[in-house]
Order: sequence, then C-alpha cells, then structure tokens
Amino acid sequence: MTEKLYFATSNENKFNEVSNILSNYGVHVDVAKLELVEIQSNDLTVIASEKARNAYRALNTDVIIEDDGLFIDSLKGFPGPYSAFVLKTIGNEGILKLIEGVADRRATFKSIIAYCDSSLIPVIFVGKVDGTITETQRGRSWGYDPIFMPKDSDGLTYAELGSKKNDLSHRSLALEQFAKWYTGMISDKHTQL
Amino acid sequence: MTEKLYFATSNENKFNEVSNILSNYGVHVDVAKLELVEIQSNDLTVIASEKARNAYRALNTDVIIEDDGLFIDSLKGFPGPYSAFVLKTIGNEGILKLIEGVADRRATFKSIIAYCDSSLIPVIFVGKVDGTITETQRGRSWGYDPIFMPKDSDGLTYAELGSKKNDLSHRSLALEQFAKWYTGMISDKHTQL
Repeated sequence: MTEKLYFATSNENKFNEVSNILSNYGVHVDVAKLELVEIQSNDLTVIASEKARNAYRALNTDVIIEDDGLFIDSLKGFPGPYSAFVLKTIGNEGILKLIEGVADRRATFKSIIAYCDSSLIPVIFVGKVDGTITETQRGRSWGYDPIFMPKDSDGLTYAELGSKKNDLSHRSLALEQFAKWYTGMISDKHTQL
Repeated sequence: MTEKLYFATSNENKFNEVSNILSNYGVHVDVAKLELVEIQSNDLTVIASEKARNAYRALNTDVIIEDDGLFIDSLKGFPGPYSAFVLKTIGNEGILKLIEGVADRRATFKSIIAYCDSSLIPVIFVGKVDGTITETQRGRSWGYDPIFMPKDSDGLTYAELGSKKNDLSHRSLALEQFAKWYTGMISDKHTQL
C-alpha cells in the first residue's frame, strides 16, 4: 500500500463528486488525469477491473477508478456500459426521444469503484440505485443527472437534488463501501506496525 | 505464415458474407467461432488491431477479423464503434426514432479488416461507403442493412440490394484490398520456395 491514493479519471465533474464524498469518510484522494483504455463488455465489473489494473500500471501507485452506467429497462439496458459515448453523441435529448411515449420509464444507475494496488488484483465495490427517466430534462447538472429520478427522492432528479444527490446516489453507495473497507485496511496496517 | 486462414467472429451472417466475397478472389477462409475481448475507442482501427492480436493469441494461427460501424452525421458519429451493442438494444427502430424528422440523413459505413500472424503486428484494410439513412426499414436482412442506402445504389438499401450488396459494400471494399495483398503475399512466398 502506498501513502497516497489517486483517483484516475479524465472527468473533472466526477473527480469533484468523488473527492467530496470520500472526504466525509476521512479519505483524501488526489486526481490523476488519465485517458485509460477500456475494454468493451456488457459487464461493468469486467470493464472496471481492467481499467483499474491499467491505471495502476500507468501510475505505479494505489489508485481507484470509477465506471458507471445508466441501464434503461425498456431499451434492454441501453446505454449501459457505453453511457459516456452515448452522452457525447445523442445526449439526453436522444435518450428522451428514444423513450418518448413509452410508459415503462424504469432505469437503474450503477457505479463500480475499483481499487488496485501492486497486487494487480482489483477490489470491486458496487452501488446501485433504481429510479425512472423523466419526460423532460429537469435541473442543471452534468451527465444523465437531469433525466434520472431516483426512488425516494420526492420526485426530484439527481440534478434537482443538487448537493443532496450525494446522500443517496449510486456513486455514493459504492464509495461508502469502499471508504469503510479502505479506512479499515489502513487502521489494520497501523495496528500491525 | 500458416497454411490456413481463419476468420474469427461470433456472427454467422458476417462469416457467410466474408467467405463469399473472399472466394471471388480465390481466398479460402475457415470460421473460428470466438467471443473476443474488444477495447473501447472512437477509432475503429485501434479496436480492430487489438482484436486481431487477441484472435491470433487465442488461435495461434493466421487470422483475420472484421470490425464495422455505422457513423451517422447528425448523431455525431453514433452508433459508430458500438454499432453491435446499439443494434442489440435500441435496434433499427431506435435509430429511426432518433433521426425522425431530421433532414440531414447522411451516414458512412466503415469496415476494417485486420490480419494478424505470428509477428503480432496487424495489417489493416479499410473500406468506406457514404450513404443515407432511410425513413423506414426496407428489405429483409441483418444488421443495419434495412436502413442504410449507399450512394450509387439507385435508391436501394443494402437489404434491398440482396446479393448485389457485395458489389459495392464497405465490407467488400476492405476485403478486396485485403485479398489482393494476401494473394500477392502467398504467390511471393511460393516464388521464394
């Protein structure tokens, strides 16, 4: 285990969110701006594991990466693992057009946090939130936040929830598990010393 | 160079098409049914190179793979490198819905043939056909064939062209280049013996 923990990403919004959430658990993370090669798979866990290994190889220091995806039921899981590409091309407008008039609005947002150290065996933490896709974009934010309304949010989208998003988001759930494991591991290490 | 040439794919339709086209050039190809790991990239050439190397490693014999993608101008290149996933999820119906009422129907179909032997340095051949996306699905076939109308096809989609598709398709263009190079290489080898 190295002294510092890095979060490898090329997405500044994501870094800010991850860094804020982790600070609640006393975990400090630095950004490593990297464009990582990702493999294609329908399984986010497989993508995240490979990405974490690649990040460790590039940085040679303990690192976490995050991969997330929005899985829309009526679109057979689209955009799923390719959420970033889909956002850059057809965007939220495209998603809303695809399910215009579709009654079933159910969707799941998944986040995978993968931690990798010199063992090159990634440790995986999964966060999952069910919700629905709105009819129009609501609230200003990034990513799919203006069209995803999580369960138990009193009818607000991620974007409309603002900073309260971090109380219940898929990313927070994954990071919470990671932080508990990571801080436990650090204190174990200190006890052993 | 090994005696036999394999085409690694999990798509039977694609194998039949490739095998038919190559037989016109006297090149015989056997199928190797493989599910290959692909990387994510906006550049089909990068995906195909890695895939060809992985295919060689899996088979230990000379191999070609094909990767293709439909790039729709008004959708910023969507579905592009993720054409297979997009077809399985939102399908042709989804594509038509996305560009319903959009005047600019331009699209490009690209095919990459990548050959790999024991050198592990893939040789790449690119075929590209410009065309337009129709308003409705026309003709029965597989993939995006019912919605892609290539230039110079007298207004017919790939699907409506039937076997004539192979006279002008993006895949044929890439395979033609490959076949000329490959047969030249084989005859060079025989001359040297």
